[in-house]
Amino acid sequence: MKKIGIIGATGYTGSELVRILLQHPGVEIAFISSESYAKQTFAQIHPQYEGIFEPILHSAQDIDQFKLDLVFLALPHKVSMDYIKKWQNKPFKIVDLSGDFRLSDPKVYQHWYHKEHVMPEWLTRVPYGMPEIYADQIAESPWVANPGCYPTASVLALAPLVKAGICNLNSLVIDAKSGLTGAGIKPSPNNIFSQVNDNFKAYGITTHRHTVEIEEQVSFLAEKEVLVQFTPHLLPLDRGILASCYVQALPNLDLNTQKLRTLFSDFYENSPFVRVTSGPPEIKRVRGTNYCDVYPVYDQRTGRIVVISAIDNLVKGAAGQAVHNMNLMLGFEQTTGLNLIPLQP
Amino acid sequence: MKKIGIIGATGYTGSELVRILLQHPGVEIAFISSESYAKQTFAQIHPQYEGIFEPILHSAQDIDQFKLDLVFLALPHKVSMDYIKKWQNKPFKIVDLSGDFRLSDPKVYQHWYHKEHVMPEWLTRVPYGMPEIYADQIAESPWVANPGCYPTASVLALAPLVKAGICNLNSLVIDAKSGLTGAGIKPSPNNIFSQVNDNFKAYGITTHRHTVEIEEQVSFLAEKEVLVQFTPHLLPLDRGILASCYVQALPNLDLNTQKLRTLFSDFYENSPFVRVTSGPPEIKRVRGTNYCDVYPVYDQRTGRIVVISAIDNLVKGAAGQAVHNMNLMLGFEQTTGLNLIPLQP
Amino acid sequence: MKKIGIIGATGYTGSELVRILLQHPGVEIAFISSESYAKQTFAQIHPQYEGIFEPILHSAQDIDQFKLDLVFLALPHKVSMDYIKKWQNKPFKIVDLSGDFRLSDPKVYQHWYHKEHVMPEWLTRVPYGMPEIYADQIAESPWVANPGCYPTASVLALAPLVKAGICNLNSLVIDAKSGLTGAGIKPSPNNIFSQVNDNFKAYGITTHRHTVEIEEQVSFLAEKEVLVQFTPHLLPLDRGILASCYVQALPNLDLNTQKLRTLFSDFYENSPFVRVTSGPPEIKRVRGTNYCDVYPVYDQRTGRIVVISAIDNLVKGAAGQAVHNMNLMLGFEQTTGLNLIPLQP
Amino acid sequence: MKKIGIIGATGYTGSELVRILLQHPGVEIAFISSESYAKQTFAQIHPQYEGIFEPILHSAQDIDQFKLDLVFLALPHKVSMDYIKKWQNKPFKIVDLSGDFRLSDPKVYQHWYHKEHVMPEWLTRVPYGMPEIYADQIAESPWVANPGCYPTASVLALAPLVKAGICNLNSLVIDAKSGLTGAGIKPSPNNIFSQVNDNFKAYGITTHRHTVEIEEQVSFLAEKEVLVQFTPHLLPLDRGILASCYVQALPNLDLNTQKLRTLFSDFYENSPFVRVTSGPPEIKRVRGTNYCDVYPVYDQRTGRIVVISAIDNLVKGAAGQAVHNMNLMLGFEQTTGLNLIPLQP
Repeated sequence: MKKIGIIGATGYTGSELVRILLQHPGVEIAFISSESYAKQTFAQIHPQYEGIFEPILHSAQDIDQFKLDLVFLALPHKVSMDYIKKWQNKPFKIVDLSGDFRLSDPKVYQHWYHKEHVMPEWLTRVPYGMPEIYADQIAESPWVANPGCYPTASVLALAPLVKAGICNLNSLVIDAKSGLTGAGIKPSPNNIFSQVNDNFKAYGITTHRHTVEIEEQVSFLAEKEVLVQFTPHLLPLDRGILASCYVQALPNLDLNTQKLRTLFSDFYENSPFVRVTSGPPEIKRVRGTNYCDVYPVYDQRTGRIVVISAIDNLVKGAAGQAVHNMNLMLGFEQTTGLNLIPLQP
Repeated sequence: MKKIGIIGATGYTGSELVRILLQHPGVEIAFISSESYAKQTFAQIHPQYEGIFEPILHSAQDIDQFKLDLVFLALPHKVSMDYIKKWQNKPFKIVDLSGDFRLSDPKVYQHWYHKEHVMPEWLTRVPYGMPEIYADQIAESPWVANPGCYPTASVLALAPLVKAGICNLNSLVIDAKSGLTGAGIKPSPNNIFSQVNDNFKAYGITTHRHTVEIEEQVSFLAEKEVLVQFTPHLLPLDRGILASCYVQALPNLDLNTQKLRTLFSDFYENSPFVRVTSGPPEIKRVRGTNYCDVYPVYDQRTGRIVVISAIDNLVKGAAGQAVHNMNLMLGFEQTTGLNLIPLQP
Repeated sequence: MKKIGIIGATGYTGSELVRILLQHPGVEIAFISSESYAKQTFAQIHPQYEGIFEPILHSAQDIDQFKLDLVFLALPHKVSMDYIKKWQNKPFKIVDLSGDFRLSDPKVYQHWYHKEHVMPEWLTRVPYGMPEIYADQIAESPWVANPGCYPTASVLALAPLVKAGICNLNSLVIDAKSGLTGAGIKPSPNNIFSQVNDNFKAYGITTHRHTVEIEEQVSFLAEKEVLVQFTPHLLPLDRGILASCYVQALPNLDLNTQKLRTLFSDFYENSPFVRVTSGPPEIKRVRGTNYCDVYPVYDQRTGRIVVISAIDNLVKGAAGQAVHNMNLMLGFEQTTGLNLIPLQP
Repeated sequence: MKKIGIIGATGYTGSELVRILLQHPGVEIAFISSESYAKQTFAQIHPQYEGIFEPILHSAQDIDQFKLDLVFLALPHKVSMDYIKKWQNKPFKIVDLSGDFRLSDPKVYQHWYHKEHVMPEWLTRVPYGMPEIYADQIAESPWVANPGCYPTASVLALAPLVKAGICNLNSLVIDAKSGLTGAGIKPSPNNIFSQVNDNFKAYGITTHRHTVEIEEQVSFLAEKEVLVQFTPHLLPLDRGILASCYVQALPNLDLNTQKLRTLFSDFYENSPFVRVTSGPPEIKRVRGTNYCDVYPVYDQRTGRIVVISAIDNLVKGAAGQAVHNMNLMLGFEQTTGLNLIPLQP
């Protein structure tokens, strides 16, 4: 049994890592920490775990008492990099769920995160933890930057098209919608029930940080610099992201929807968590699972390709993808512990 | 007091017309019909009206017994035109809430509605009942075609830009999201609670009828033929549409968000129901009202204009706009009976 | 036009008072205050009012500059009584929406509110603002204590039975369920969306303050001391309370449901806002209105009476009932401005 | 591997049985049937299973081609008993999820189900499949009647009190609230989204069939005939039942909440799926799991005991309890395949 640590137990991501790891046959959660709730039990913070998982929460500074194989950092952006810097010579591997090592250029990081990076030389060396694209680099790296939730849904929707070279790269529009858990667990006027229930809105229009994360990944795939129009919206539900992606196809390609479906199926042939679905994806059909459902359509009238993708933002968009990365880094089968079944209804 | 008739009392639109007209000081509901529930009371079908409004539902064929000034047709598409044909020589005016007279070309109608139109020569003569654009024609016409819900949100978001001639007209993408009432009151596997709750999906991708309705209106404004990419989605809430519209601006215009806001404010200066809001629109902020909130943003990075608009699909997208048209047709102030206040939360 | 003040503009009750008063033909909102948001506009705090109602928020201490006829206190418990003490010689009438003057015994107040009352001698002199029972006292009093939301739904369900003397008074059980707005607008771990959505729980079991408020009113009606078992629950919706009340009938009364319905209809004959409904009440059927729907059933098997009642906690349970009290205090017809129509769906 | 059949694949219970059985290490789903969707795949009916579980649906009459060890009947009441009658000599065991064999008296069955029972002599011989109470009988029986959802939550809340003989048995009131899936998957005006969303109501007041099922079980435990007051309500959420149970304690027992907690903990010492929780149960804390959370409180003021219980109606209230019964009948550890973790949020 590999020994696993979770740093940051009190948010939704920490709770979700526990849910998934408890079902994983090859690991045990040997260490779990929270600075604000140290010495309380995990089930006091997340009462659904009463009778299931009730360890005492440590302070992160106790980590040396445990011989960990891998540590998940479920910490806020800008805090996470300090931990990696401090722990860079520790013997354990690290999956960082924050945004701190997802971008490759320290200046870009500083521009979008409003803080100077503390380990700028590492930005090009930590792989982007999207197994569908970077499985080999992930398997060999001590540290991995787990992708953002919106970028996961967006990049998986666009990658086959961009890689195939059939897109007008100036035309990319991503209209994405997320459930509320994406905004974190901390109470604020924006996430109280009566503000969110029965409501819907766009936010971060033209300014959301995931824009640049998507742009960087799409640019790598396109092998040229690409800008995308990305607009996030807030859905009145807990879990799930649905991204509607619009791409002008290059002219004279003789495209149709069936050809696109074949392109996607081939591209994701060895990706067990991407389903090219037979109908339009629905958020509830991936709830609680590590699936990303994708569905491309070609519009003969307009010459545009529309791709819909759906994930559970807490699983494929966070904890599940992180465990997928762990599986690659520790030598497990990539699906081990991740054959989760949708909770629908 | 003007005497009003409502044909089709049992759907959400019929119920909503009653809610609004009961608050209108210049009219009375003199006739209300339902073929399937004739002889029952309105409150038996819509029990929230117990003690408030409990008339017996007539059959439409009884209409001649009442001296009506104006009739609302709250009937399904393809049924509505038969009523207008039958009643074309009646003395009352008609606001038709179906899609039957919204398009101007019988062939286009037949292509998208899969039925031959029964009064093709009238398609170009019945004005499109969007008061912000066609107030004069509406005021003088015996019949008006009340706009669709998605087209209302979409056209009001785009009209100032298209009219100003600042758009690349090949770039229009409309990503729209609607609450469930837009799908009607009839039970089906697609609208039961556990299918919709916590869920979100796109539907009618590349094929929704409102596509062509939007295209026709945008083309009139642009004075040239325009295609739009329109994708509707289903939100887990009752009321409301939010449309996120993407437009590539023509180059070298030296645009910014403030200029766009001025453009919108000027365009809607005399439109009491369009609010150019100070922040991104939210569906709940227009709930129960006749407002259309619009919010344009210019993205300097991409050169695109993003416009968000929000309406209550049952009010501004149906019954409220219909009463607005009635006000114009019967000579009331356009806001009479329509100063509804949002029910938030 | 009577001049009205609202003290405490930033909560749901303040916002709802504005919604209702703006539709009242006999009053104007002349003064509206918030200590925490003074000098901002009302629409900055409640953006749904953009373009509708945008006055500057005052500090309460500015109140003397305005010749007010009546003031609503939409303040927290224990704060409200300090205002009344300070303003006791002012020329305006007061409707207090807090719990500070609802009970009649200072010791009982102190026991349940954990604070000594600052005007104990007034507790027996301020009428309980439930117009169905105390209309005469309300009309003549300078100050009125507006009832709590749960007590409104509970007392109106039980009053006809208790008054008729047909209850075993040791058997009263009230199982009540409220939407989230009853818990106020302040963000906390208990009211964030993902804690409330899809969830349901009981809270304050055996300890909720409204227990004693209900007991006092039921005891007045019974003319003897009565204890009730009251359990509140939290519903995943914004507005509405449904109370399920259980009463053992006294033996040998030859009761049936029809007799109970007649009893209720007679009791509420002159109460325009109580509807004895033909079917079980539903929260959504009273949404946005001042109705209390009640529905009694007699169970021949068990000899118990079950009464279901439903209100909108922000209207009949707060702002609407407050305006009803205002109408009585200022000499309007009691329904003036309160003929609100349910927003359903 | 034991071979399992599921008769009735298209409802929520069938889908949930599949979700649980796919995670069970000792069984395989060898046969799954639907008369209305025969020859389609399971994933066509429940698209969340695309890529996970896609067998062809059989007709039930094909069952002899498969050597099944146990069959789950996920069929409507009154249909199920015909299957058991037809299959009574088959070699497989049966867990019947309908209500057809839950009661012990054919006359009582006929009174509440409005149909004559086809195997009346079996009603006293098929054990009631509540493992916390009848584990031994279940293990030895070829057929088991899986309990109803409301009775599961209600009986587990009351059993320790009734068994301990501390209740006034004339005082039992059960106020229960269920999510929408309890009403089944078939579209009707009562379960469309806009009827349920933001809404709450009681239904079946004094007449719900589960009343008599609860009464029979409580009477067995009390060893005398007991009537209960049972009122079900409909919550605007998918899964979960919360039952609030009220019992007058017998006098002079010197009770307190701590003593009740000890009583419950002792009673359920060997029941791995009943949690005596440290705080009031919440529906979301058991979502997707086989737990029944219970929480007793003693009210010193009134002498009443309040017990709150919570289950997932599709799991502990249906498919999970059925698999628990299967484990007992086939000789597995009772928790095998049932260590499900709550999906919260």
